Amino acid sequence: MTQNRLNQNRYERGLKLFQNMVGPQGTAALEEVRQCYPDMAEFIVANGFGDIYSRPGLDLKQRELITLSSLITQGAAEQLPMHVNAALNIGLTPEELIEVVIQCTAYAGFPKALSAFNVMIGEFRNRGIELTAGRV
Amino acid sequence: MTQNRLNQNRYERGLKLFQNMVGPQGTAALEEVRQCYPDMAEFIVANGFGDIYSRPGLDLKQRELITLSSLITQGAAEQLPMHVNAALNIGLTPEELIEVVIQCTAYAGFPKALSAFNVMIGEFRNRGIELTAGRV
Amino acid sequence: MTQNRLNQNRYERGLKLFQNMVGPQGTAALEEVRQCYPDMAEFIVANGFGDIYSRPGLDLKQRELITLSSLITQGAAEQLPMHVNAALNIGLTPEELIEVVIQCTAYAGFPKALSAFNVMIGEFRNRGIELTAGRV
Amino acid sequence: MTQNRLNQNRYERGLKLFQNMVGPQGTAALEEVRQCYPDMAEFIVANGFGDIYSRPGLDLKQRELITLSSLITQGAAEQLPMHVNAALNIGLTPEELIEVVIQCTAYAGFPKALSAFNVMIGEFRNRGIELTAGRV
Amino acid sequence: MTQNRLNQNRYERGLKLFQNMVGPQGTAALEEVRQCYPDMAEFIVANGFGDIYSRPGLDLKQRELITLSSLITQGAAEQLPMHVNAALNIGLTPEELIEVVIQCTAYAGFPKALSAFNVMIGEFRNRGIELTAGRV
Amino acid sequence: MTQNRLNQNRYERGLKLFQNMVGPQGTAALEEVRQCYPDMAEFIVANGFGDIYSRPGLDLKQRELITLSSLITQGAAEQLPMHVNAALNIGLTPEELIEVVIQCTAYAGFPKALSAFNVMIGEFRNRGIELTAGRV
Repeated sequence: MTQNRLNQNRYERGLKLFQNMVGPQGTAALEEVRQCYPDMAEFIVANGFGDIYSRPGLDLKQRELITLSSLITQGAAEQLPMHVNAALNIGLTPEELIEVVIQCTAYAGFPKALSAFNVMIGEFRNRGIELTAGRV
Repeated sequence: MTQNRLNQNRYERGLKLFQNMVGPQGTAALEEVRQCYPDMAEFIVANGFGDIYSRPGLDLKQRELITLSSLITQGAAEQLPMHVNAALNIGLTPEELIEVVIQCTAYAGFPKALSAFNVMIGEFRNRGIELTAGRV
Repeated sequence: MTQNRLNQNRYERGLKLFQNMVGPQGTAALEEVRQCYPDMAEFIVANGFGDIYSRPGLDLKQRELITLSSLITQGAAEQLPMHVNAALNIGLTPEELIEVVIQCTAYAGFPKALSAFNVMIGEFRNRGIELTAGRV
Repeated sequence: MTQNRLNQNRYERGLKLFQNMVGPQGTAALEEVRQCYPDMAEFIVANGFGDIYSRPGLDLKQRELITLSSLITQGAAEQLPMHVNAALNIGLTPEELIEVVIQCTAYAGFPKALSAFNVMIGEFRNRGIELTAGRV
Repeated sequence: MTQNRLNQNRYERGLKLFQNMVGPQGTAALEEVRQCYPDMAEFIVANGFGDIYSRPGLDLKQRELITLSSLITQGAAEQLPMHVNAALNIGLTPEELIEVVIQCTAYAGFPKALSAFNVMIGEFRNRGIELTAGRV
Repeated sequence: MTQNRLNQNRYERGLKLFQNMVGPQGTAALEEVRQCYPDMAEFIVANGFGDIYSRPGLDLKQRELITLSSLITQGAAEQLPMHVNAALNIGLTPEELIEVVIQCTAYAGFPKALSAFNVMIGEFRNRGIELTAGRV
């Protein structure tokens, strides 16, 4: 990246992308973090979304597949709901998200996959999504 | 999946896909595993490739992005070379693979990302690949 | 394993073993998973229990010791209750389960051991088990 | 350490230090563990606090920085509250604790850092602490 | 444990057990650690072997199954050789050790299982062990 | 942080700090990364050192204690040498570094602590450091 790109508008670029991805609910959660400690919120936005998600080279759907796999693998179940919602907002289907879990059964083991599966199903219910297929 | 699909031809279907993805070098490594303990090799092929990689719902490039993210996140550097080669064989570009690493700096931390970066660069050199861009 | 064993009756063999190990409560939880996404439930049963737990070479008690140690080490506390119950159902004693935790203090560290200890104690209470000794 | 130091008074030395660090609330939690299984409580006290925290070479504040980083990195969120309280009791400031989290964003990734951040903020609220700065 | 047991003879009891389990090669490795920093060696012996392995409640074979599962799950490949040798020395068979790996494919994922498999096979070769079966 | 601080001079500030901490050897390693993929090197410098290490709130010694604990806990042995050297360069003593390892025996378990211990001892030898004490 050019030094300009590294230094300027990271926060603004990141915030716009973050809001588009996570919607009002995620934006409200970020605002709570900012109320407590502004730098923490700014790092999430500027480093995570301004620097990384906004890069070319991979599209947002690809980046969310990578993120979901990392969250499942490290057992970060409590951070999954935000990314399940972001993934659906940018156009990944519920069935694709479940396939991420099934791919992770082999690489991260059944316990982490099953915990992630339960969180995902809960988020699908919150959004009124019913999985119709499930047999592929 | 239908019970038929669950039960039949898993090994054959998996072996064919495995060979296409990893080429002669990966196939030779599998053969070494089989020499030592046939069941271990058969599980890798039947459960990993016959059951999971061959599923519809996500294409092979998407599945390798998920796999690479899981390997990086769990620090499984010694299993990366086979999947870096498989990923290149199925059409992911070297720049896309490096972007997986950069995405993982935020989610798995710099130490695991940097170790994966070093392994990837080594594999690229083995294949005579030179990254021309690197600035996006 | 023979190709026959790899391919046939995995699901049926696994389901029977699963039901014997986890009892009605675990079977109901599996049924919920199946309602959401049948393949996920079938993988758990066929790959986990049909392929692996039903193998010779180690008995079920040994396999549960290995499973409990893996769950404790990876911090998968939310998957512990099902396996605590399965372990008790197949004849491991509550004291033996606590000794798994104590062995893990040295290998996985106190934080994961203590979290697992608290989950185990909760499951023992659910089953009306009181640890009488605790001093060895 | 001398053999004497290794063998004698570990429990008494550890219990005194433990009580000073964690206060009545942490001491009550330890008592619950002891009710269930005395050896588990004695290991925590004798090995953790009698052997390790009471060593010279690093002071208690340094040891808690190391502990907090380890807990955040392994995702042991449920063990954080006791150590957040211990860290405040021995004189680390709330702002220093949040800086541990920010340092861990780079080394353990944002998901684990954000989960730890949320736990810390909850503990600060329990103690009536409001972070006044947050911009450095 | 009684306070006496907690405090006395931990090191002597642990060292004797350690030497029996790991043989001359492991004892030499411990001696190297002691040359560098005596306390580190004493902690390994007194806390690991004097306090934990020497407890009743589980026998040594069960404790090594738990240890191997923990090492595989946390990806601690470099610590496996000592415990593979200890496990063989106390009477676990090579086939049982490979079954620990196969059980871990489901719980810790294929990458960690495969890395452990490779280390185990190497240790078996060092000891002149050839796996004759491998099909169960 | 102010938006100005977030956006400007991150790279320059980070590079200067990085060079001071890691010396010529670490700087050469960074240059190799940059030759392969400039953005990776710039992220390490700008996000890791420009944004985080250069923050007030904790001094460099405290930040390295946190980093070392995180590296040990996640088993990132291959990233330890650079930080062992950085830690010594900024004034932490070899004995303090070994105490980080000993503190981590309780929180991350013996396997990760022992692997880190071996790496540290190797780095101390590279620098001609002999640990004189080791008994505390």
